[in-house]
Amino acid sequence: MSAPFTLGLDYGTNSVRALIVDVRNGREIGTAVWEYQHGEKGVILSRDPHLARQHPEDYVIGAEKAIRGALAAARKSKAGFSADQVAGIGVDTTGSTPLPVDATGRPLAFQKRFAKNPAAMAWLWKDHTGVAEAEEITARARELKPQYLAKCGGTYSSEWFWSKILHCCRTAPEVFEAAHSWVECADWVPAMLTGSEAPERLSVGICAAGHKAMYHEAWGGYPEADFLARLDPGLAALRGRLRPHAVSIDRAAGTLTAEWAARTGLRAGIPVAVGAFDAHLGAVGSGVAPGVLVKIIGTSTCDITVASENDPLADVPGLCGIVPGSVLPGYYGLEAGQSAVGDIFNWFVNYLRPGGTKAGSHEALTQAASRLKPGESGLLALDWNNGNRTVLVDQRLTGLLLGQTLYTTPGEIYRALIEGTAYGALAIIQRFEEYGVNVSEVVNCGGIAEKNPLVMQIYADVTGRPMKVSRSAQTCALGSAIAGAVVSGVHRDFASAQRAMTGLKSRVYKPNPEAHAVYRELFAQYRVLHDAFGTRTGQGNLHEVMKKVMALRDRVRS
Amino acid sequence: MSAPFTLGLDYGTNSVRALIVDVRNGREIGTAVWEYQHGEKGVILSRDPHLARQHPEDYVIGAEKAIRGALAAARKSKAGFSADQVAGIGVDTTGSTPLPVDATGRPLAFQKRFAKNPAAMAWLWKDHTGVAEAEEITARARELKPQYLAKCGGTYSSEWFWSKILHCCRTAPEVFEAAHSWVECADWVPAMLTGSEAPERLSVGICAAGHKAMYHEAWGGYPEADFLARLDPGLAALRGRLRPHAVSIDRAAGTLTAEWAARTGLRAGIPVAVGAFDAHLGAVGSGVAPGVLVKIIGTSTCDITVASENDPLADVPGLCGIVPGSVLPGYYGLEAGQSAVGDIFNWFVNYLRPGGTKAGSHEALTQAASRLKPGESGLLALDWNNGNRTVLVDQRLTGLLLGQTLYTTPGEIYRALIEGTAYGALAIIQRFEEYGVNVSEVVNCGGIAEKNPLVMQIYADVTGRPMKVSRSAQTCALGSAIAGAVVSGVHRDFASAQRAMTGLKSRVYKPNPEAHAVYRELFAQYRVLHDAFGTRTGQGNLHEVMKKVMALRDRVRS
Repeated sequence: MSAPFTLGLDYGTNSVRALIVDVRNGREIGTAVWEYQHGEKGVILSRDPHLARQHPEDYVIGAEKAIRGALAAARKSKAGFSADQVAGIGVDTTGSTPLPVDATGRPLAFQKRFAKNPAAMAWLWKDHTGVAEAEEITARARELKPQYLAKCGGTYSSEWFWSKILHCCRTAPEVFEAAHSWVECADWVPAMLTGSEAPERLSVGICAAGHKAMYHEAWGGYPEADFLARLDPGLAALRGRLRPHAVSIDRAAGTLTAEWAARTGLRAGIPVAVGAFDAHLGAVGSGVAPGVLVKIIGTSTCDITVASENDPLADVPGLCGIVPGSVLPGYYGLEAGQSAVGDIFNWFVNYLRPGGTKAGSHEALTQAASRLKPGESGLLALDWNNGNRTVLVDQRLTGLLLGQTLYTTPGEIYRALIEGTAYGALAIIQRFEEYGVNVSEVVNCGGIAEKNPLVMQIYADVTGRPMKVSRSAQTCALGSAIAGAVVSGVHRDFASAQRAMTGLKSRVYKPNPEAHAVYRELFAQYRVLHDAFGTRTGQGNLHEVMKKVMALRDRVRS
Repeated sequence: MSAPFTLGLDYGTNSVRALIVDVRNGREIGTAVWEYQHGEKGVILSRDPHLARQHPEDYVIGAEKAIRGALAAARKSKAGFSADQVAGIGVDTTGSTPLPVDATGRPLAFQKRFAKNPAAMAWLWKDHTGVAEAEEITARARELKPQYLAKCGGTYSSEWFWSKILHCCRTAPEVFEAAHSWVECADWVPAMLTGSEAPERLSVGICAAGHKAMYHEAWGGYPEADFLARLDPGLAALRGRLRPHAVSIDRAAGTLTAEWAARTGLRAGIPVAVGAFDAHLGAVGSGVAPGVLVKIIGTSTCDITVASENDPLADVPGLCGIVPGSVLPGYYGLEAGQSAVGDIFNWFVNYLRPGGTKAGSHEALTQAASRLKPGESGLLALDWNNGNRTVLVDQRLTGLLLGQTLYTTPGEIYRALIEGTAYGALAIIQRFEEYGVNVSEVVNCGGIAEKNPLVMQIYADVTGRPMKVSRSAQTCALGSAIAGAVVSGVHRDFASAQRAMTGLKSRVYKPNPEAHAVYRELFAQYRVLHDAFGTRTGQGNLHEVMKKVMALRDRVRS
C-alpha cells in the first residue's frame, strides 16, 4: 500500500469533521472540526418549533476548513505525512436533509433572491414542518401503494424527503417553482467535491434514497409518477428530473476536482465515494455485521444493523427502513432510531437551565444523577420531546414527565430523561427481535457513548445487555474513511476494510442484575404510557402507573 | 364600643402572623409576622418526601413575638392606641396538624428524650407518611361504617388526624405509648393562651374534629371505639382520653392568662375563641356566605363555602368535609381544596431553579408566562405534585407534565403549572355544582391572589367566571379577629361582624371569552388525563391528548 491513508468527511447537525485514517490499522492521525456559522449553532430556527434548516454555505466552507485542519493536524502528529498519501475520500451527512437546486445543481440558497428564505435552504433532518404532508403521503400510500410503506416501517415520516418537498410545494411555491431538483445533502457534498452537481452527472446514494425517499428496485426506483401526481403534479414532474438509479457506497461519485484540490491541499483526481448518512457510515465504522446492532448516540440516535440478502426477512413495522445495500453492499440495511437523545439532555441544560449557575451543567447533573439508585426518583419520562421515530413513527408525540413531587430535583429529572431514552432504546431492540432480527451484540458510538459512562451503564441496566463502545470516537468519519478506502481500492471490500480499521474499547458496561430488576418494572410502566399515549391500544392500566412507580421508589429507598 | 379592636393570630406553614383589627370597619392597624426557626422554613423534613413536621416551640415563641410586634405596629400607626383596647383574640392554624401531648397537655416534643424525634412533633398538614394507614382506615370504614366516609368525601386522607396517629402507633410506638393524647394545633394554641391545655379543660373545635377526625354528632362524636379498635386497640383507648364534645368558633376556649398577658402586653382575661383552620377563618374573613365560594390560595388551597343547615344537602363525593357549624354557626361548612398550588410554583423556582441566575424568580417567570397566549406552549400539567385533595382524595398521585419539545422554556412550564392549578380549581367548582351547591360568586384571598394578577386572570379565563379578591390581604388573621369580636361580644354574631369587617377589592378579573374558549378545549384534555390517571374510568381517549394539545397550539399560533 503506497498510499496508506484515506479521509472521512462527516457533516453533523452543528459542525463538520474531517478525519485522516491509516487504512492498515484504523489509526486516526489527524482530525479537525469546523462549527457552522449560520443560525443557532448551524441550525436556522423560527417561531415554528417544527422548523430546522441549514445554509449550504456552511457545507462549502466547512469542507475546506475541516480538510485543511485535518491535514495540518496529521502533519503535526505523524512525521513524514503528506497530503499526497490520502488515497480517497468518503462523505457522510445528516439526513434526510434535502436542498432545492437549480438546473446546474447549484443550491437555490446561493441566489440572492432566496438568500434569507428558509424554504430555499437545506431542510435539516429534524425539521418537522411537513407533518401534515407526511400524514397525507402515508394515507395515500396506504390506499394506493401499501408496498411503499412496508419498507419504511408502515408510516412515512415528516422528517423525510417527500414530506419536506411537498410541504415546500404547498407553503413556498416560489421556491418549489424555482427548484429544478432536490438533492440530499449526502449526495450534494460528494457532487460538489467532484464537480458532478449537474443533474445528469449526479450520483444518488441508495442509503438516502432507499431509507427516506421510498426508492426501491421492486417498483423501479422512486415512487411511481401516478402516485406522486396524486399528491401534487409538481412532484410527478420532479420525479422525471431525479436520477433514475441509486448506487451504494462502494461506488465513487467522481474524483476530486482541481479546484477542490487547490482549496484543500489534497491530490486532485482521488476518488470520492458515494455519500451516505452519518449513522450508516458510523455503523460501518463501528463494525456493523449480522447480529451486531450499532447505536450511534448523538443529538438523536440511529440504530443500525444488517441482515444477509440471502435470508428471508419480514417487513418490520416501525423501522425507518429496510434497504438492500444501504449500509453494506450485499446486506439489507435496517435502520431504527430515536428522534432525540442528546437533544433532550441539551434541552434540559440549555433551555431550562436548572439548578442556578453551577449545578446545571451536563457534568454536574450527571454527577447528581449518578448518586441516585434506579427507581429512586419516582420519575418516569417518555423520550418523545422530538417525536418518536421508532417504533411509533410519529413526530406529533411530545415529551412527558410523570412523578414530580414538591421536592423533585434537577438531578432526578436529568436521570429520568436518560432512563427515558434507555427505555426507548429497549423498545427498538425488542421490536427487532420480535421480527426475527438477531441482536447478539450492541456496539455504541457517538459523543454520549464516549463521554458519559452513566448513560452507558443505565443503558446496560435497562436493556439487560452488555454495552460495548466503538474504539473510534469518530465512527461516522471513520466509516466514511473506510468507504474512501474501498473506492480507492486500497481495501478490496468492506469486510476486509472493517477488519483492519475498526475495533472496540476494552471497557464493557455490564448490566447490574439488581438494577435490571428494578428497570424491568419501570420499563413495564413505560410501556403502559408508551402504548396509551402512542397507540390506540393497551390503555387499561394507565391509572396504576403512578402508584406502581411510587411504590417501587418507596421500596428501593427502604 | 369602648374597646374597638380584636386580634387575630394566624399560624401558617412557615410563619405566624398577628393582626389587630378595628371591629367597626375592618381596618387593620397593626400586624407582625414571625418566621419559624426549626427545619427548613419551619418545616422539618427527612429523606422520606412524605414527611413534614413542625416543632411546637415555634408556636409558643411565635405567639409572643407576633403579638408584641403587632401591638408595636398598631401603636405606631394609630395615635392613642393601647393594648388594653384589644377585646378578644381568635386563632387559626394549619390542619390537620395534630401533636402528641402528655397528661398535662404539654407537647411530647418538649421532653428532652423526644426533642429530636420527628414523631413527637406536630404532624404538619402536608405530612403524607400515613398513606397506607389512610387506605386502611378508608377500607375499614367502607366495610364497617360507610357513614363516616360520606361526610368526608368518600376517602379518608393521609393528611388527616387518625391516619397520622395510626402511622405513629405503627412506626414510632415509643412516642405513641408516651402520648396521653393528641391535640390539633388549632386547639392547642388557644389552650396554651388560656391555660387550658389539660385534657379535662381543653376545648376542641368542630372545624378540625369534624373535617379531619370523622367527628359527627350522628354517631356520638369521634368514630366509635369498636371501629377504632379494629384499626388498633391503642386508638380505641385514645378515644377515651379525647374530649367528647366539639364546639364552634362562637365559643371561647377560655381567657388570656396572666402569664400570656405579661408575655404579650395584652390585657389578662380577654376571651380567646375556639380555634379553627386557617382556611375556614380565611373564608370568614373573605365574607363567605351561601353561594359564595372562597378560595384561599397559598402553598395549597382551601375552597370553602357554606350552605344553610335548613336545606337538604347531598353528600358530595371528594369533598374534604361537610360539617355543621365548622365555618359559621348555623351553616354546613363545605371544604374542598388542592394539595399544592403555590408550593408547585415554589418547587419550580426553588428546586429546579430554572433559567440561570436572573430568569428564574417568580417575578421573571410570571413576566415570561404573561407574554404567552393560552394554549401556545403546547404544555399540559396535572397539579398533583403533592397529591390530589379534591375531588380524587388521593395523596399518591404525582405531578405530570406533557407536551415538552426541544424548545420548551421555563416561562412556558411556569404558565402550564399555573394553568394546571386553574384546571384543578375548575374541577372543584364543577363538583360543587354537580351536587347542587350553588357557586354564584368566587372570592379569592391569600398571597397569590394578592400578588399575582396573571394567576387570577388565568383562573378567570379557565373557569369562565369573574375572580374577585378579598379586600384584606390577611383574611385568615382577619377571620380570627372576627371570631375574637364575636366571643368578646363586640359583635353579636358572625353576620354582623362580617358585614362590618370584610370587603372586596375594586379590581375584578373578568374572563376573556377567547381565552376561555381555548381553555375549554385544554380543560377537556386535562379531564382526560385527570380521569385516566386519577380514576378507573374514562381512559379511551388518552392517546389523542398530545395531538389535540399540539394542534390547538399550532392553531392559536397561526
